[in-house]
Amino acid sequence: MSITLALDVGGTHMRAAVFPENERKPIHQTRIRTYADGETSLERLIHLIREITPVDETIQAIGIAVPGPIDPHLGVILTAPNLPEWVGVPLPKLIENEIGAPVYLGNDANLAAVGEWRYGAGLGHHNLVYLTISTGIGGGVICNDHLLLGYQGLGAELGHVTILPGGPLCSCGQRGHLEAVSSGTGIAAYVAEQLASGSESVLQDNPDTKAISQATKKGDRLALEAFERAGYYLGLAVANYLMIFNPSIVIFGGGVSQTGDLLLDPVRKVVRESVLSEHYLQDLVLTQAALGDDAGLYGALALARGALPTSSPIPKP
Amino acid sequence: MSITLALDVGGTHMRAAVFPENERKPIHQTRIRTYADGETSLERLIHLIREITPVDETIQAIGIAVPGPIDPHLGVILTAPNLPEWVGVPLPKLIENEIGAPVYLGNDANLAAVGEWRYGAGLGHHNLVYLTISTGIGGGVICNDHLLLGYQGLGAELGHVTILPGGPLCSCGQRGHLEAVSSGTGIAAYVAEQLASGSESVLQDNPDTKAISQATKKGDRLALEAFERAGYYLGLAVANYLMIFNPSIVIFGGGVSQTGDLLLDPVRKVVRESVLSEHYLQDLVLTQAALGDDAGLYGALALARGALPTSSPIPKP
Repeated sequence: MSITLALDVGGTHMRAAVFPENERKPIHQTRIRTYADGETSLERLIHLIREITPVDETIQAIGIAVPGPIDPHLGVILTAPNLPEWVGVPLPKLIENEIGAPVYLGNDANLAAVGEWRYGAGLGHHNLVYLTISTGIGGGVICNDHLLLGYQGLGAELGHVTILPGGPLCSCGQRGHLEAVSSGTGIAAYVAEQLASGSESVLQDNPDTKAISQATKKGDRLALEAFERAGYYLGLAVANYLMIFNPSIVIFGGGVSQTGDLLLDPVRKVVRESVLSEHYLQDLVLTQAALGDDAGLYGALALARGALPTSSPIPKP
Repeated sequence: MSITLALDVGGTHMRAAVFPENERKPIHQTRIRTYADGETSLERLIHLIREITPVDETIQAIGIAVPGPIDPHLGVILTAPNLPEWVGVPLPKLIENEIGAPVYLGNDANLAAVGEWRYGAGLGHHNLVYLTISTGIGGGVICNDHLLLGYQGLGAELGHVTILPGGPLCSCGQRGHLEAVSSGTGIAAYVAEQLASGSESVLQDNPDTKAISQATKKGDRLALEAFERAGYYLGLAVANYLMIFNPSIVIFGGGVSQTGDLLLDPVRKVVRESVLSEHYLQDLVLTQAALGDDAGLYGALALARGALPTSSPIPKP
């Protein structure tokens, strides 16, 4: 029997799973911390791969989701604030030399989209937009069964688009990005700002998204308004993505999307009101992700199994 | 010798050109009005095709650019405010029955992008964004050598995205779309509004974009401000499209783009200031279209010659 390994590396944890050939269920899955004393993060990755590989099994391929865009010509990570020591490093080659199996790298948000598309909520769709709403906002897009990468693999940065010119400051330093308004960080910043300017609320100090979400259940007006506002701008952005990509499904992943209708009801309302024609709503599915934290892992599996027509290097013009 | 016919049908004119096999230069090109007494627009189209076809030539294929999105499953125009009598009509079949050659339909803005990509300013690029700025704003996108169509062929409506929430009214009825702010109509509406509220200017009444553009040469402050404002929001939108598509080239077509640096200088400035990382600017070309009014015609030629991997119907999910 031969196996495929799928890994999802973040700034805090590395997750790994072992899949037998043609199977969608892992025979083994584990998680370790990305950083620990006495080892580099890359050494920890190699050890993790060795540890989860069952004895006497042949590794067919290894797919790895990483938190940054990958140059499709060079196969290296271009930027990764959460994993800076991996930027510019020829990871596939290094790991192949150690393990002896082909290694494929993909951006984690892109691969989460691929995971949902091949194994999750997007199964059967050919045009898909995936948005992950957590502390930040990331995205992945499937156009006519192709993953959108762009010239340098930097496309689908769906959280870093201006949706409110001159609006709140984003983690990237720009103003009014979708991420600055509708991410967990954006929601918490809005509440903190309103509290500081004297808004009445059961919330105190600097509540996080979870506390704000819980306060909505007590009918707290500020908390409700914060989600309403985040959902409004997220809805405007989703309507824009309908005009731009005309997908048949939009999938919401990430921690903040798990608040469900609290965030998604205002999104649905704005989307209905904002489309250019009713055609955009025909057959359209707006839904929460099905794979949760495993989306990136399943995307890495699809990548390793060669599911992506565009996972090979794109020729320079 | 066999020939390919390319047509571009608008609400005012129909344009047609005859291309010998493997040639980029038409041997004949003509233009007639779309509407005239005593004939329907479809009859005029058929007559035009018959008239321009040289005697004793075999028509290999006919490509037609039409002003509306085309359902990729049914091959019919979904909406077309400028050509309402063609909506829902099985045009390819009707024309094939009359002429006896295969007919391919494409949306005019999409085909203008294809024309610039295969024969114009975008030659050699694999990831391209095309924006046509005239009375409205349309778009076309090439991702990794594929035309972006979407589930129902309604994608790449790059002018109908919200860039200024609550902003001016768009032709489509929504507020704050890029088209409402940065199109010729948007520029003229802004000037008219400022004049009505007492702004000083050499301009009077309801000047059109041409008059406003001429007034900038006299240093008219309102006229300059109007282009600066249109360019600012167009720049924000272009920066968004860099984050979304990571193209290696952005091409500006349409009448208003012919004002050149007047519109494009503020665009370039905002784009430089707004990208997520310098990588997006590497090798990036921002340029005016090369084919002018012929872009749609050349796109229709490329379509007829089978240049589009996605011109065939997309299977339903």
